[in-house]
Order: sequence, then C-alpha cells, then structure tokens
Amino acid sequence: MAADTLIHDMELPFQLYDVLNAESLCKHEKFADHSRETFDAVLDTAHKMAAKLFLPHNHIADKQEPTFDGKKVSMLGDVKVAFDAFREAGFIAGRYAFEDGGMQLPESVMTAVSGYFMAANPSTTAYPFLTSAAINVISHFASDELKAQFMPKMLTGDFTGTMALTEPHAGSSLADIRTTAVKQDDGTYRIKGSKIYISGGEHELSDNIVHLVLAKVPGGPAGVKGISLMVVPKYRLDENGDPSERNDVQLAGLLHKLGYRGTTSTALTFGENDDCHGYLVGEEHFGLRYMFMMMNEARIGVGFGAAMIGYRGYQYALDFAKDRTQGRVAPNNKPEDAPAPIIFHGDVKRMLLAQKAYSEGGMALCLYGSNLIDRINTCADAEEKQGLQELLDLLTPVLKAWPSEFGPKANDLGIQVLGGSGYTREYLSEQFWRDNRLNPIHEGTNGIQALDLTFRKLWQKNGLGLKILQKEIQSHLGAITTGESSQMAKKLGGYLAKLHELLTHVAGAIQSDKQITLSANAQAMMNAFATIVVSWIWIRQASVAEKLLVDAQSESAKAFYLGKVQAAKYFIDWELPLIERDLQLLHNNNDVCAQMQPDWF
Amino acid sequence: MAADTLIHDMELPFQLYDVLNAESLCKHEKFADHSRETFDAVLDTAHKMAAKLFLPHNHIADKQEPTFDGKKVSMLGDVKVAFDAFREAGFIAGRYAFEDGGMQLPESVMTAVSGYFMAANPSTTAYPFLTSAAINVISHFASDELKAQFMPKMLTGDFTGTMALTEPHAGSSLADIRTTAVKQDDGTYRIKGSKIYISGGEHELSDNIVHLVLAKVPGGPAGVKGISLMVVPKYRLDENGDPSERNDVQLAGLLHKLGYRGTTSTALTFGENDDCHGYLVGEEHFGLRYMFMMMNEARIGVGFGAAMIGYRGYQYALDFAKDRTQGRVAPNNKPEDAPAPIIFHGDVKRMLLAQKAYSEGGMALCLYGSNLIDRINTCADAEEKQGLQELLDLLTPVLKAWPSEFGPKANDLGIQVLGGSGYTREYLSEQFWRDNRLNPIHEGTNGIQALDLTFRKLWQKNGLGLKILQKEIQSHLGAITTGESSQMAKKLGGYLAKLHELLTHVAGAIQSDKQITLSANAQAMMNAFATIVVSWIWIRQASVAEKLLVDAQSESAKAFYLGKVQAAKYFIDWELPLIERDLQLLHNNNDVCAQMQPDWF
Repeated sequence: MAADTLIHDMELPFQLYDVLNAESLCKHEKFADHSRETFDAVLDTAHKMAAKLFLPHNHIADKQEPTFDGKKVSMLGDVKVAFDAFREAGFIAGRYAFEDGGMQLPESVMTAVSGYFMAANPSTTAYPFLTSAAINVISHFASDELKAQFMPKMLTGDFTGTMALTEPHAGSSLADIRTTAVKQDDGTYRIKGSKIYISGGEHELSDNIVHLVLAKVPGGPAGVKGISLMVVPKYRLDENGDPSERNDVQLAGLLHKLGYRGTTSTALTFGENDDCHGYLVGEEHFGLRYMFMMMNEARIGVGFGAAMIGYRGYQYALDFAKDRTQGRVAPNNKPEDAPAPIIFHGDVKRMLLAQKAYSEGGMALCLYGSNLIDRINTCADAEEKQGLQELLDLLTPVLKAWPSEFGPKANDLGIQVLGGSGYTREYLSEQFWRDNRLNPIHEGTNGIQALDLTFRKLWQKNGLGLKILQKEIQSHLGAITTGESSQMAKKLGGYLAKLHELLTHVAGAIQSDKQITLSANAQAMMNAFATIVVSWIWIRQASVAEKLLVDAQSESAKAFYLGKVQAAKYFIDWELPLIERDLQLLHNNNDVCAQMQPDWF
Repeated sequence: MAADTLIHDMELPFQLYDVLNAESLCKHEKFADHSRETFDAVLDTAHKMAAKLFLPHNHIADKQEPTFDGKKVSMLGDVKVAFDAFREAGFIAGRYAFEDGGMQLPESVMTAVSGYFMAANPSTTAYPFLTSAAINVISHFASDELKAQFMPKMLTGDFTGTMALTEPHAGSSLADIRTTAVKQDDGTYRIKGSKIYISGGEHELSDNIVHLVLAKVPGGPAGVKGISLMVVPKYRLDENGDPSERNDVQLAGLLHKLGYRGTTSTALTFGENDDCHGYLVGEEHFGLRYMFMMMNEARIGVGFGAAMIGYRGYQYALDFAKDRTQGRVAPNNKPEDAPAPIIFHGDVKRMLLAQKAYSEGGMALCLYGSNLIDRINTCADAEEKQGLQELLDLLTPVLKAWPSEFGPKANDLGIQVLGGSGYTREYLSEQFWRDNRLNPIHEGTNGIQALDLTFRKLWQKNGLGLKILQKEIQSHLGAITTGESSQMAKKLGGYLAKLHELLTHVAGAIQSDKQITLSANAQAMMNAFATIVVSWIWIRQASVAEKLLVDAQSESAKAFYLGKVQAAKYFIDWELPLIERDLQLLHNNNDVCAQMQPDWF
C-alpha cells in the first residue's frame, strides 16, 4: 500500500497555472524575476523536504507528544531537524522581499508550497507557520525600530512567533481579556496576565520566542476597542539584538490535545514577578484592529490546512481502496469470482468522491483566496484594488469555515472507507481525523465565522465585496458555453438568483426584531453562501478541465481531468441542493433555535 | 460543573410509559408479574449501579487500556468490579424467564436499562452485552444439550460470550471466510482459522469465554450459504460442566483502537495446534442465517448505544454551556454588562438542539424497535405477528445506521460547544466522540445497512414490512388533530407521499439496468427513508408531550415537554427538508457516483 502520496502530481500545477493563471503574476514588477520554472522549483523543494523530513515523524510525534518537566519542554528530535531544514531553505521568508532575505514569491505559490507540509505533518509545520503569521503582523504595524529588532531573526527562524489572544475565562470573547500592559517611563510596557491555548508558546526549537500579546492599557475604552497589541519576547534583547535576559513569561503548563499533538499548546503566565517587558505595536487601543487586518491570511491558512489534512486522508483511503479486496461487484457477483478491490463498490466510490469534492474544493477555494491577495498586491487601479480587498474580506469567513467543516468530514469518510482498520491506531486515518478536529475551533470558531459573515461581511462597504463576487462569478459562468460545465453553471445560476433574493430578505431581517432569530440561523447563512461559492469554484475547475481534456495526450492526464469534472458534478448534484433547506429557513425567519429556552433542554 | 448527568430523570419514563405505553405489556401473561413499579425498580438499580461503578472509571480505562504480556490480558481492576456487580444483579439474564434465573423483563425495559450503562461507560458495558448477544443465539438455535452446557453459566456471567465473524482478509465479506470446521467421529468439530476484531475475545473477567464462530464445513456450498455456526469455548468443559482443559484458541494480539479502549479487541487464532474443539449450533450451513436472525437485537443495541454516547456528550455539553460565561447576548450586548452563559447564544442553542434531536431521536427510535420485539413476543394473532416481524426486519438497518450516523454527529457538536476545552483531553467530549466512531463501522457498516435496506428489506415479503410501517405511521399521524404536532404531521405527510412515489420508481430501477447506479446511491435511500421514520418518531414524542403539557403541574415537567416539542420542530424544519436532495437523486437515477472510475480519482 503506497500510503505516502502527499498530493497528486497534477493537482497543484492544475490549480495554480491552469485555473488561477499564476504565471501571469510574473508580468508584474514585484514578481518579474519569477517564472513557472522558479515556482516549480520551489514546489519541488517543498515536496521533497516534506516527504523526507516532515512525513516520517508525523505519526511518531502524535504518539510521543512534547513533555514539560517543570523547567524545559522536550520533544522528538525530528521536529527540530525538520524545522531547521524549513527555515534554512528560506521558506519562512518565502513571501518577503529579496532585500529582506526573502524569495518574493506570490501568496498563492506560498499557499501551494504549504500544501506539501500540511499534508505531511501539520503539527511540525505549525511552528514555522505561526512565525510567518506573527511576522505578517509586525511587518505591517510595528515601528521601524521594533521591526529591525525582531523581523530579521524571525524571517530566518532564529526567533519563532506566537499569537497570544485567548484567556482562560474569556475564550472567544476578546472584549473581556484582563491582561494588562502598563506604560513605563522608558516607553516600554509591563505585561501582566494569563493566556491559554497558545500554540508554539514554549519549545527549544529557536533562540527566542516572540509572543504577540493582546492586552489592555489601563484607561482605554471598554470592550474590543480598548485592546492593544504588544510584542513580548521570551528573552529580552541585548544591545546587539541578541537574546539575553529572560523575560518574565512563564509556561504554566502544556495542554493535552485530542490531535495536533506535536505542536505544543500552552498556558502562559506573563508578569508573575512584575517584570514582563512588552513593546507596543502601532498605537495603543488599536491592537485588535491590527490583528484582524492580518486575519485574512491566517484564516486562509487554517482553511487550506484543513483541506490538506482532509486531502491526505482522502489519498490514504484511496490507496487503501485500490489495494483492499472484498466482496464482488455486479454483474460479476458470483461467489466463485475473485474478490474485487473495494474501490469498485458503489458506496466506496461515493465516499471517495465526496472526499475528493470536499478536500480539492477546499484547496481550490483557499488558493483562489491567496490569489486574491496577489491580485490586490499587484493591482494598479485603486478602485479595483479596494473592490478586491472587500471581496477578500467577504470571503475570509468562508475560506476559514468551509474547508474546516468539510475537511474533517472527508477525514471521517476516510475512516469509514478503511472500515475496521480505520478504527485502529495501526492505520493513520484516525490521526488525520483527530488533527483536523482543531480547525473548526481555532482562529475564530466556525460559529463566529458564520456571525461575521451574516452580520458584517455581507454588508461591509455597502455590500461592495458581494458585488465584486457576483461580477467574478457571472463573468466566469457566462463564458462557459459548452460541455457538462455549462449544465452545472445553469444549475448554479438558479441558486444565485435565489441567493440574491434571500439577501434582500436578510438585509431587512437585520434591521428588524428578527435579528436575534437570524443570529441563531447564521449557520444556515454560512451553509448557503459557502456552498454557492464552492460550487462556483468547482465549476471553474470543471470548465478548465473540460477545455484541457480536448488536447490531453496521456491517459493519466485524461483521467485527471475527467475526475475533476466528475467531482464537480458530485458537488453540484449531491451538495448544492442541500442549501434549499437553508434558504427556506432563512426566508421564513425560522425561530426554532432562537426560541429554545435553556431550561427546556 | 455537574458533568455526571447520565439521563434526564424524565426521559426514560416519558419514552417507556408515555410514548410506548410499556405498562400495557403487563397485561400479557409473560409479564404479568411486572408493573410500572417493578420496571422502575430495575431502572433505578441500573441508574445507581451505572453511576457508582461504571461511570467513575470510564475515562481511566480509556487512558489505561488492556495490555497483553504474551500470556495474559490485564486490565483496570474497576472493570471486573463493575462487571461482577452487573452480573450479580442479574442483568445479563434480565430478559430471560424466571425459571432460567432471569427477570423476565420486556425488551424495551432492558433497552432502557442498558441506557444508563451505555451513557456511563460503553467499554465496560460491552462485556456483559456481548454475552447477552451470544446467549440470544444459543438459546434460539442450539441443541438442548449445548444449551444446558453453556447457557446457565452465561446467564450468570460466569462465562462470557463473543461473536467471532470477521476474518483479516474478508472484512464485511463473510462469503469469503476461510475458517474451517471439520466433523469428528464423536460429532464435535475441529476448528482452524483466524478471526479479527473480536470484542471481548480475551480477558480475565470470567471463568470461560464462549466464542460463537462462523466457519465452513468442507463440502458445503460456496459463499454465504456454506457457513456454519460453532460454539468454541476457551476452556472445554469437564463432565460436571466446569471449565477444564484449555481449548486450542489463542490470542494473536490485541488491537489498539481509536476509542472504546476499555474493551479488548482481539485477533484470535483457532486450531494452531489442530486441537480446537467446536460444537455445531443447529444444522450445518445454516450458520449465517442463525446469526442474522439474531442481528435485529444486536443492531438495535448498537444503534441505541450510539444514541446514548451521543446523549451523554449532549448532557456534558449542556452542563458546560450553562456554566461557562462568554460574551453578551443581544439586546444586552454592551461591553460593561456581565458576560452571559454561552447557552444564551443562538448558535450554541442550535448546536445543543441538534444534539438533543439526534440523540433523543435515536433513543426513541431504538426503544420503539425494542418495543416491537415485545409486541411480537406478546402477539396472539399469527398474521399480525408476521407483519410486526417484517416491520422489525425492515427497520433493523435504520435502527443500526441512523443513530450510529447521528450519535457521532451529536458528539462532534458537543466538542464544538466546548470550543478549545473540547479539544483537550482534560474534558470528556473527545472521548465520547472517539468511542462513538466505532458504531458506523461494526455490526455491518452503515454502507452495508444502506444496501440491505435498498435492495432487500424494503421489498421483503412483497413489501409487507413497509405496508405495516405505513399503517403505523398513518394511524398515529391521523390521530393528531391539534397543536404544533399537527402542523408537523402535515409536513411529514407531504414527504410520505413523495416517498411512496419514489419507492415505485426505485422498485423499477432494481429490476432494470439502473441497479448498479442505485447501489451507488443506496446512502441516499437510507437518508430519505430513515429521516422520514425519525421524523415520525419525533412527531410522536411531540404529540405526547403536547398532551401531557395540558395538565403538567411542575415547571420542570412543563420545560421538559416544551423541549420535546421544540426538538421535534427542529428536526422537522432543519433535518427533514434535507432529504429533498436524496429524493431527487434517486428519482433521476443520478449516476455520478456509479460512473466514477478508479483511475479518475
């Protein structure tokens, strides 16, 4: 059983070049030194490194999770080997400018690169990825001085980064955080408080750990408007910028998770001895705004990771289904016939097709989102740029929530394909399933994403993002005139009209006493909207595949394109119609959930 | 946090007495010595025992799973304490006649009894339950001699039982098993072969383990028609019927499972030294038939267990949601207000309501199934009895598959309600989720249940079961004339008409070249049919609750009944409409899954 397939050889080139036309980015000055060849070389390096250094210890790190002896965190040595290879290859700085030591690669290519690592070993990959996310915030909002102190060493991975948002009592409710940052005469701050679920919050992989901490500067406004963002290193820097004195940040303990066990999840105490130094990012009280402005990338990362774990589970189940024989398939269903590989059984095909539709759909969705960032970054027209930015904002909750809802569903079906074997820890399906269960929870639970979509993103800037989305979809669907894609486009067209009608209704509900009812039905809004977007993403893949099919030479290429068309058909026939339920609930202002009372449970 | 709620105090009395009118069984001779009081006494004993002896080690046994040192299996001592209390209370023999040392209790009451144990600790509960299942087969089909040898000691739990069906190479395909049983001059058989995933296949809880082994007697027909059923004890019995010589059954190894870790799952080798004695049950070549005739009870057990694990997760999440404060709820959403318990948030209500609908729906469905067994057992009219038997046969795949699909969904939502806490092993939600993941796989995968329903059960005896089901549903729905239940009944009526139409179509497809297409869509048939059945089960609960509401005195009783009505409404509004998709797929003979080719993946 060749269970080590990370990604089908044609998948990422198809997505990047055939669907998203990523090569066209090279016309822009920023990416002028790049070409398909340089992109491919980076992808190839990522593939080899992921297969050689990340994949082999994925399961081992799950069984031997990091430990804390009260002084030091220990983990499997393979994690550091992989992390070092990753940083030495320059991947942490991949998206940054040449002059910063980066590779100046497009976001979409970097997302594709991340695919190999996420498929191979999401836990080890978390360390450099969290660092990238922290760099992203610092690079945009910190002062030049702060940037100079921390960014170069984070870009090389000498320092790693974390995002320290959540507190034990507050969970998703950041308005209620209690960590304080008190300004000192020298302009630094003293931090005091507790944070929880801080991934990568302690380890020995790097020389320093740079925590981005949300805290309240006393005297600020109540709620989310009074939150500031602080850089809080594990070690303070000496005059040469090297780590020296230990800052007053302590590991209170490691959390023991269901999955993603290779990544330390920590409870951290800041300022237990009143000596935790922090440095303000940007201005006081704007911290949450900075954080959220950088959430787009982080949330695409979560969504794409969830799709990739789902995809890995799919490939694993696929290999199993081709190999494992059981029973017979009509019309050859006589007991004396040899047993058939289970991939020939109709219900197994259904389960694999669903996994393909969910995971490749999530990948394509998030690559589209990354490509939007590239389009924003290379857009010369200010108005168009704003429109694309609004589109990205609108799609961000979908990019996070849809793949993290459906990636785990793919992993669930992956277990089912393996049957009894899937329920044992001797096979990997169950680990994929456990690992992926994190994704609907972190970086804003999917419930919060649904509220964000329903009450904010759909209407932001007078619905500009929505208008741009409709334009993108219409211009694409309108161009499809033949083939199975055109039939699918027609089906989707009907739902787009229904969505349009529904949004008028929902806009009214938000302004009325139906707001509370709607808040209990936000998940239905997310289902309907996200399914329509992903349907489009699938039809887009199918239409490209149908075009390429005409001149495809090899049998394997033909098979790949036919598979894309079939998965799109699956999505349109099996998934899209489910939103009738959601449209109906929303249209009727269904109040069953909202009216439920706590003591009725 | 009072996280130890096993079952809401009103739940089982409501189901048993108000919905199923279980007291009426006492009019029948068989149950004449019973009354609501004796039923309640048994339920009360079960509740206390489950809470005291099963619940406390549920999580510990998950962390300290059984081990095998090459000679002996060791497990947590608490398991034996609980098992002994269970058997000493007479629960293994609960459904058997007084003269056999049993309590002569109805099946529905025994199912309710099992609820406490399944909620508290499914792994430890598996040992006595597997024994009950084995007794059920032996009592119906074994010779008097074999019965006399094994049944009494199994009824007391001195001997435990297993079902040894699956083989490593064959999985679900029992036609391909290779274990042989060769007849000896003394009438006994020599067994040779390997079995896998045998739950409770080895342990030190009892004096003997009685394996029910499917094997082929050489010379029999190929496929499933040539399978015989053998009793194969771990220790052969001496002339006094006591365990003496070790039989040639060896533990090849323990399997390490994702969940249900407290139950040993074993690979067993029979006859490695050509000295494994087995005793034929019934006649040669009829083994699979015997096994399947007893599957109804076993499959209700799996379905009910899945519902109960889902229910426990729901209760756990409910306690958490009442206790945990986070954020504010409109219209009190000013930052200076105190945070609200998360149960007041709309999306949390939705998640809890879904869990309630799934788990209580599954419980009610399986209790209805158990009650059907009681009705069959007490039915004097031969024709009516046959109809009820057909109805039970028809529903069996639904009773197994629906709760084992939706119980785990409830557990998934349970994790989501807990958020970050739900992802840690410090909380129990993740264990419930892992434990329940077994249920869609064992006792016939849910894919196989869908095929069984679609190709066999719907049409068995000219669709007699279906006719009886329609009669049951119509007579019940017709009697609902007022309240919210009557509106729900009206909605369901529309779907019943659609189902009727669809079945005519599907009957045609089975007889045509669309059979293969249909086999890939069997899951859609299961979805549609099961959702309609469960909708009826929910409306039935709601209609009873609405009646009781009129005279309800206490606030807590009113709240309970209102909750039932609301959960029914949730099911009718949020779940039932989803089957439009399935009806459409089946009606169109949608061939997307069937047409998918292995090399297109």
